Amino acid sequence: MVLRFNPWSYLCQLMNNKPTLFTALTPALLHLYDLKDSIVVIIDVFRATSTICTALYNGAAKVIPVAGVENCIAMGKQIVGSITAGERDGKVIEGLQYGNSPAEYPRSFIQGKTLVLTTTNGTKLLHMALESGCSEVITGSFPNLSAVCAHLLKENKNVVLGCSGWKDRFNLEDTLFAGAVIREVKEHFTIHCDSSLMAESMYDRHKDDMFEFIQKTTHWHRLSAYGLEKDLQYCVTPDIANVVPIYRDGELLAL
Amino acid sequence: MVLRFNPWSYLCQLMNNKPTLFTALTPALLHLYDLKDSIVVIIDVFRATSTICTALYNGAAKVIPVAGVENCIAMGKQIVGSITAGERDGKVIEGLQYGNSPAEYPRSFIQGKTLVLTTTNGTKLLHMALESGCSEVITGSFPNLSAVCAHLLKENKNVVLGCSGWKDRFNLEDTLFAGAVIREVKEHFTIHCDSSLMAESMYDRHKDDMFEFIQKTTHWHRLSAYGLEKDLQYCVTPDIANVVPIYRDGELLAL
Repeated sequence: MVLRFNPWSYLCQLMNNKPTLFTALTPALLHLYDLKDSIVVIIDVFRATSTICTALYNGAAKVIPVAGVENCIAMGKQIVGSITAGERDGKVIEGLQYGNSPAEYPRSFIQGKTLVLTTTNGTKLLHMALESGCSEVITGSFPNLSAVCAHLLKENKNVVLGCSGWKDRFNLEDTLFAGAVIREVKEHFTIHCDSSLMAESMYDRHKDDMFEFIQKTTHWHRLSAYGLEKDLQYCVTPDIANVVPIYRDGELLAL
Repeated sequence: MVLRFNPWSYLCQLMNNKPTLFTALTPALLHLYDLKDSIVVIIDVFRATSTICTALYNGAAKVIPVAGVENCIAMGKQIVGSITAGERDGKVIEGLQYGNSPAEYPRSFIQGKTLVLTTTNGTKLLHMALESGCSEVITGSFPNLSAVCAHLLKENKNVVLGCSGWKDRFNLEDTLFAGAVIREVKEHFTIHCDSSLMAESMYDRHKDDMFEFIQKTTHWHRLSAYGLEKDLQYCVTPDIANVVPIYRDGELLAL
């Protein structure tokens, strides 16, 4: 059995009246945190949540995240003005129309359309969060860093930063984004969590050599082999698509 | 379903003929790694694996790690010259004789004796490793850092560094030790693992302010409230009990 209730954190919260912030480093660790009444930030830097905020920033009506390819195709047929998208191994999945690259969704193409997107790691985490009784699910990545931070400060609720990882393993790019959020908002939260301390320390160390450091990660090696370096560079660039995608009734909308 | 086989890692291994090294950040992530024929290093810096190497360094005949208090008491009655030990919330568990502090086991006391030790996080991980078909289980912590590294280099097998964490959550002190090992041995292994990259980066950043940084961790706050600062300082001091505890038939022995 695992500890969900953290008396230390609860005591701190009572004493200083600040909401708590925790970081779940992979979906396999999300169940260790009490998500009830919290805002959960789904983080999938390479590339789902970077693509989601970019599409919404460029005027997409909504993004519908779905778990499987068949669901994605079926949903695409139902919705007028929708496009289906998803990748495996750097290529558009057979039966879908577009890939998982933010560069595919400029305003001239995506404005007013509905993007039905299937992803592996991010969608899994999103559905886990929804089943937990959380207050709200939003998505975060470097392109909407400031928008996410501003939203968390405005709402003043408990927060869990949920990293999507890679097939349940820890990954660096999601952790670095969690660290970037923590650095911006930490004065306004009670943070008593080694994952958050590590994330902030890693971001602090690598914020000035982010693009160089990120090239050492496993995900970079995996995706750059498909010629996706420009995509990856975009995905670690802060504040170029500053909207907050919020999940409501099966859809992600720009707040 | 999770990915156990990593084609990239396998390819690297074939190409450069070096064994692989991975880091499992908590017991909840251990199943993601293929432990078969690997050396698993169990890491529980605060304080189980620090106490284990200290007792063996000071001449204990063996250490028997057991999962529960009842097992510990029963085992203590069976073995002549044994002492039972275990703590909860910084106090000796009722029914046991000693605690989980390395300071309790100087040579004058422990030499020739069998230490039957019950711990929470470390023992759990050890039993998980044993069930995985691994080649060998050893324990590591700062007091036996160099001995562990020398052993890994000598054996030249695949390695998984297993952090015990805290009730399945990530913790910093075990990760920092993993990073210290990686820094010493990395030239001799194929390391393609974000957890290892992070652990090494964190160690590299904090190796010179380890004692100051470690005081920010959740475990430090928990244990220092019981007046255990000296213990914790000991547990992050490298190479003061340089033996390799190796698990054989239910017992940890000095190699």
